[in-house]
Amino acid sequence: MRRPVVGVMGGSKATVNVSNMAERLGALIARHGWVLLNGGRNRGVMAASARGAKKAGGTVIGILPDKTAAKASPDLDIAVLTGMGDGRNVINVLSSDVVIACPGGLGTLSEIALALKHDKRVILLGRDKVAPALERYRKRGRLTHADTPEDAVEQATAILATTGAQ
Amino acid sequence: MRRPVVGVMGGSKATVNVSNMAERLGALIARHGWVLLNGGRNRGVMAASARGAKKAGGTVIGILPDKTAAKASPDLDIAVLTGMGDGRNVINVLSSDVVIACPGGLGTLSEIALALKHDKRVILLGRDKVAPALERYRKRGRLTHADTPEDAVEQATAILATTGAQ
Amino acid sequence: MRRPVVGVMGGSKATVNVSNMAERLGALIARHGWVLLNGGRNRGVMAASARGAKKAGGTVIGILPDKTAAKASPDLDIAVLTGMGDGRNVINVLSSDVVIACPGGLGTLSEIALALKHDKRVILLGRDKVAPALERYRKRGRLTHADTPEDAVEQATAILATTGAQ
Amino acid sequence: MRRPVVGVMGGSKATVNVSNMAERLGALIARHGWVLLNGGRNRGVMAASARGAKKAGGTVIGILPDKTAAKASPDLDIAVLTGMGDGRNVINVLSSDVVIACPGGLGTLSEIALALKHDKRVILLGRDKVAPALERYRKRGRLTHADTPEDAVEQATAILATTGAQ
Repeated sequence: MRRPVVGVMGGSKATVNVSNMAERLGALIARHGWVLLNGGRNRGVMAASARGAKKAGGTVIGILPDKTAAKASPDLDIAVLTGMGDGRNVINVLSSDVVIACPGGLGTLSEIALALKHDKRVILLGRDKVAPALERYRKRGRLTHADTPEDAVEQATAILATTGAQ
Repeated sequence: MRRPVVGVMGGSKATVNVSNMAERLGALIARHGWVLLNGGRNRGVMAASARGAKKAGGTVIGILPDKTAAKASPDLDIAVLTGMGDGRNVINVLSSDVVIACPGGLGTLSEIALALKHDKRVILLGRDKVAPALERYRKRGRLTHADTPEDAVEQATAILATTGAQ
Repeated sequence: MRRPVVGVMGGSKATVNVSNMAERLGALIARHGWVLLNGGRNRGVMAASARGAKKAGGTVIGILPDKTAAKASPDLDIAVLTGMGDGRNVINVLSSDVVIACPGGLGTLSEIALALKHDKRVILLGRDKVAPALERYRKRGRLTHADTPEDAVEQATAILATTGAQ
Repeated sequence: MRRPVVGVMGGSKATVNVSNMAERLGALIARHGWVLLNGGRNRGVMAASARGAKKAGGTVIGILPDKTAAKASPDLDIAVLTGMGDGRNVINVLSSDVVIACPGGLGTLSEIALALKHDKRVILLGRDKVAPALERYRKRGRLTHADTPEDAVEQATAILATTGAQ
C-alpha cells in the first residue's frame, strides 16, 4: 500500500523565516511517515522542505521542470525529470494526496488553482490572504489556513483520514 | 511574418453576458487581423470567442486538453490536440503574444499566473477583483483591467506595438 | 469546418535531397488546401517543408519544443510554443489527420511509433526500411511507403477521404 | 545521494514468459539497491516488474499516463500522476539513469527512441531485433542486447558505474 504523498508548494525564493518554516514542515511530514513531494529544485521552499524531511529520515520526491538533475536539491530520494517547465505543475498536484502551499509567487498560485480544480484539498501555510477567485473554496472548506507547520500537519492528518490515502 | 496571437482565456461555463462579451471580443480580434488562441472546447468563453472571431472572418486556433477533437468548438481553424489535460494551460500562454482573461474559474486563474510568470502582459476583461498575489503585477502595469472588449483590444494594440509582435 | 491537417515529420538535419523533397511535399500539401503541421524549428525537414508550403500560399503550424519562438522557422503562420521538449512529439501526431514521415532520426521514430499507437495512418516518404516492431502495421496497411512527394500526397488524399477529415 | 534509477519499459500486454522475465528483472533491480521506475499501470511488464521489485523489498516508482491512481499497480511506492497520456513517455526516460526495454509495442519503441535521443544507454532484454533506425546506436554501443535479466542487470551495473549514477 502506498504511503500518503503530501505536496509542498512554495516560492523558489524564500525569506529565512519561510525557509525555516518549510524545513520544519518537511521534518514533520517525514515523522508522520508521509512522502514529501515538491518541485525538486535546490532553491527556496523546495530546498528547505526537502532538507527538513531528509534530516528527519523521510522520503522526498522532486518533480523537476528540467531535463537533467543539475539544479536538483541534494536531498531528493527520487528526481523525476520532466523537461516540461511549468507544464509539470499539474503533475505536482495530481500526484499529491493533499497540498500544503507555503508563501510563493505565480508558480505556487498556479498550483493552488490546479490543485483545487482537481479536487485536492489545499492548506495555505503562513499565507494571510486568499485570492478572491478562491474565496468560494475557502467557504466550502476545500482551502484552509494554517499558522504553523504543526497546524498544517494536523489538518493534513485529518484530510488524509477522509480521503483514504492513509 | 507571423500575425500576432491573442490568447483568450475564461471559464468553460459562462453567463449570457460573459458569452456575449467573449463573442464581441472574438470579433474585434478577428477584425484587427490577429489570430485568436483559446482552449478550444465547445463551451463557455472558448466557444463564444471562437464563434465571434469566425463570424468576423478571423483565424482561430484551439489548444485542447483532449486527445481527440470530439469536444472541439466547430469554429476552430486548427485544433491542437494535446491529450495533456491542464498540462496544456502553459502552452496556451506561451503561445500567446498577449493574454486577455475573461471571467472564469481555477483554470483561468492558473493561466493568468502562468502568463505573468512567463512575462506575458495580461488584460483582465470584466473581472473586478485581482488576487492579492497578483497585486504587484497590477502596480507594475503587467496586469491591467478592461471594462469592455473594445477597451481590451485597444490595450492589446498598444501592447503588441511594444512587443514587436505586430 | 476544419481543413485537414497533414503532419510532416523528419530530421532536424537533412541532406540537400531530403530538403528538396520536403520542400516539394510542403508545396503539394499547400496546393491541396491542407494545413501543414510540423515541429516548427528552422532546421532540416521542418524548415524545408514549411518553406515549400509557404511559397505555395499554404498555412503552416509549428509545434515547438521551446518556450520562445527564437528557433522557429520564419515560414510558420502559427507557432505553438510548448516548452515541453520532446514531450510535444505526442501533440504533433495527435493533432495530425495523417502523418508523413520523411527521413529522420530518433525523434521522428518516436513520432512514427506514437502516431501508429494513436491510430493515425503513417506514410513513410523516401525511407526504405521499416523497423521490425512496425512490420505488423505495414502488413495491416496502417504504415505505407511513398517514393515521391506526389505519391505521398496521393496516398494522403485517399486516407483523408476515408477518415472524414476532408 | 540519490540511488540509481533503472527504467523498465515494455508492453502493457505480456506473455507469461515475458511477465516472468520482467518479474525476475524487478527482483534483481531491487536486490542491487536501485529504484525501479516504470509506467506504473497494473498491466504487462509494468505490473510484473513492480511486483518482482516489491517482493524483493525494493522501491518502485510509476509514472502514470493517468490523472488518478485507479489503474496503478498495487506494488508502487510512489505513483506520479501526470494526466498527460503518452506525453509522459519522455519523463520515463529522462528520469532513468539507464533504460531496460523488455518486449513491447509502439509505446516501448517510442521510449527506446527518446531514451537514445537523450543520451541514455538502452538495454534490450529478450528482444531479438533492432530497428534499422537504431542500428547506428547498436554499433556505437549505446544500445545493447541482453538475453536474461541477470545479463541485463550486469550490463546496467557497468553502465551506472561509468555514468556516476552509482
